[in-house]
Amino acid sequence: MTDVLLRGGRPWGQAGPADLLIRDGVIHRSAPALDAPGARVIDITGQLVLPGLVEAHCHLDKTLYGGAWVPHSADDTLSGRIGNDLARRAELGIPSVARIVTLLERMSAHGTVAVRTHTDIDPAAGLRGVEAVRAAAAQVPVDVRQVAFPQHGLLTNPGTAELLEDALAGGSSGPGGVDAVGGLDPAGIDRDPVRHLDLIFGLAERHGAHLDIHLHDGGSLGAWELELITERTRVLGLGGRVTVSHAYALGQIDDAHAGRLADGFAAAGVAVATAAVYSFPLPPVKRLRAAGVTVACGHDGIRDLWGPYGSGDMLERAMHLAYRSTFRGDADIELALEAATYGGARALGLAGYGLAEGDRADLVVVPAGGGAEAVVVHPPRTLVMKDGAVLHN
Amino acid sequence: MTDVLLRGGRPWGQAGPADLLIRDGVIHRSAPALDAPGARVIDITGQLVLPGLVEAHCHLDKTLYGGAWVPHSADDTLSGRIGNDLARRAELGIPSVARIVTLLERMSAHGTVAVRTHTDIDPAAGLRGVEAVRAAAAQVPVDVRQVAFPQHGLLTNPGTAELLEDALAGGSSGPGGVDAVGGLDPAGIDRDPVRHLDLIFGLAERHGAHLDIHLHDGGSLGAWELELITERTRVLGLGGRVTVSHAYALGQIDDAHAGRLADGFAAAGVAVATAAVYSFPLPPVKRLRAAGVTVACGHDGIRDLWGPYGSGDMLERAMHLAYRSTFRGDADIELALEAATYGGARALGLAGYGLAEGDRADLVVVPAGGGAEAVVVHPPRTLVMKDGAVLHN
Repeated sequence: MTDVLLRGGRPWGQAGPADLLIRDGVIHRSAPALDAPGARVIDITGQLVLPGLVEAHCHLDKTLYGGAWVPHSADDTLSGRIGNDLARRAELGIPSVARIVTLLERMSAHGTVAVRTHTDIDPAAGLRGVEAVRAAAAQVPVDVRQVAFPQHGLLTNPGTAELLEDALAGGSSGPGGVDAVGGLDPAGIDRDPVRHLDLIFGLAERHGAHLDIHLHDGGSLGAWELELITERTRVLGLGGRVTVSHAYALGQIDDAHAGRLADGFAAAGVAVATAAVYSFPLPPVKRLRAAGVTVACGHDGIRDLWGPYGSGDMLERAMHLAYRSTFRGDADIELALEAATYGGARALGLAGYGLAEGDRADLVVVPAGGGAEAVVVHPPRTLVMKDGAVLHN
Repeated sequence: MTDVLLRGGRPWGQAGPADLLIRDGVIHRSAPALDAPGARVIDITGQLVLPGLVEAHCHLDKTLYGGAWVPHSADDTLSGRIGNDLARRAELGIPSVARIVTLLERMSAHGTVAVRTHTDIDPAAGLRGVEAVRAAAAQVPVDVRQVAFPQHGLLTNPGTAELLEDALAGGSSGPGGVDAVGGLDPAGIDRDPVRHLDLIFGLAERHGAHLDIHLHDGGSLGAWELELITERTRVLGLGGRVTVSHAYALGQIDDAHAGRLADGFAAAGVAVATAAVYSFPLPPVKRLRAAGVTVACGHDGIRDLWGPYGSGDMLERAMHLAYRSTFRGDADIELALEAATYGGARALGLAGYGLAEGDRADLVVVPAGGGAEAVVVHPPRTLVMKDGAVLHN
């Protein structure tokens, strides 16, 4: 591959402008006024260079993206949405490889380079979702990683645990590999938090997998489940491989309690992923970061039977996170951008992520004066690069 | 002016497609397959036609829009933001006619045809903000109406009441006319709710003006102030001319209490304007509409010293309103679009607003299958028309 020289950009978080010389898929050199004979030179003077965006929580298998508008048809309860989802997915051809490809292409055009997606696994659907996401991931230059997700219950849905095991046994290698096991409201949905958590932590340990658990359970119930998750992460030595998604409870309990949980997460190595959806409670991002907790960000559903919103643009999603967090100052707004970049990369365990020499050349260039402006304005991307290849320019 | 025939669009809220014949600034005819010799024909087959968008609550005089990014510099208190605003506006050249023009042009490109803007009036600034908005409004084809707004206190800031009177005496005619008096947290900020309200209601009555009062005061305090506002509107017969902006209290009190206040608003003719900003409490839009209360929508500040967010796109703003309201179904999402169109028009008292024959030809065309999709996706506009003139196509 010909070398590429990105001329005059301002790498986010660095003191000044730098030219970036891309060779063999990595950032080979980063310094002002580089000389690079034979390289393809792309002038991005004055523009912001970000590491590629990381979508840390979505549901590719459910998406209706790219098709005609489908009016939302579920009632306003969680059980109603689950029932509606089960009833209508065949009619609508879900999962659809074509629709997943369309969405992944859109994400890529917005600068997303890595995606963690929670794929429904249950006795009715089997592993069809997993296979559809694998097939789609093979077609788009985005690093897609799947979570084997018991959307329709685990203990309450016999046969699901065995399917999760099968999905993990299918392996984490290749496009759309399954490298994580999921969970869902061990108390509120699955009715037996201890057995639910023991089961999924056991799966994660046995398969050397990550664990990413949906926790909508609120208030003191959710907070207590967060303690159970922290304990298991610490005792099993799974630090750095465990993420709690949504974690509404952190936004509902008092500050001191949230602070104690945050300290526990930091010590045990539990990350938090948030999508900042609707008006639902939001984890206290600033407090979590101050405690040293990894915070990641994703869309949750994008244009699916659970709700019609979402664009696939992680800068726009970071705006929602910053806005809902009432972040006004640049440093605060950049916490949301950190979640959509480095935070997501840590949660997913991405290797060689960043803007330093030797890091993978997964980059996005934005016409913005700084990280805060990039989030607030989320303008069209100037350039997206994955593994050194220029994708959108 | 040459007639314009918009061919094949689907007017929002009507049963099927219709051609719209625009003549002399109004919708002259609306019917399928119109014949219009000599007209300029614009094919918009299959696209959605909305009445022009209405920005019912913003602060044009404060905007930094169109300039370089200005990092937010105020602390996280209301008094801190007010002090920072006062300290920095001269340094930043606020109010700036050029910046207001830039923002109005952007709003117009997004399909906004009418704007209510709250302009700071105080002894330090005098009427400079009012004059700047008038000068800008004369340059852009948007119907701009100003609220004489005591941002820095009314009773607590001697001389302000007289300046509000001067602003109203300057008249409501012409671009950027002052046709409303404002107010601000009669209890929380101005410390004497009865005298504050009596003063601004007196001004509204004497000048035949509208009244649009900022009410951030929350909980039972704000709810009680809403009762005071309803009583005065009813007794003075000002129904249809009074709007409460923000009205956070409605989102904090219990449902039954909010329902009683909503019924009072409907009977007295009090409208509610919301911007759905940050994570602040949101008035219950669906309940208000069910009670027959007019609900309008606006951005609040756009890129100013109070916060860096905002694009000027009222379809995007309607998305925020729908999203924060957890509206998923089409009919619910269209309540947000109603607020950004007809609701705003009723609150502002716009004449001849709508999509019927005889209405003003203030239109926006969107490549969307329906109102809900237009809100969720808020795609670039295909065409914007103001008083029959094609502005963006």
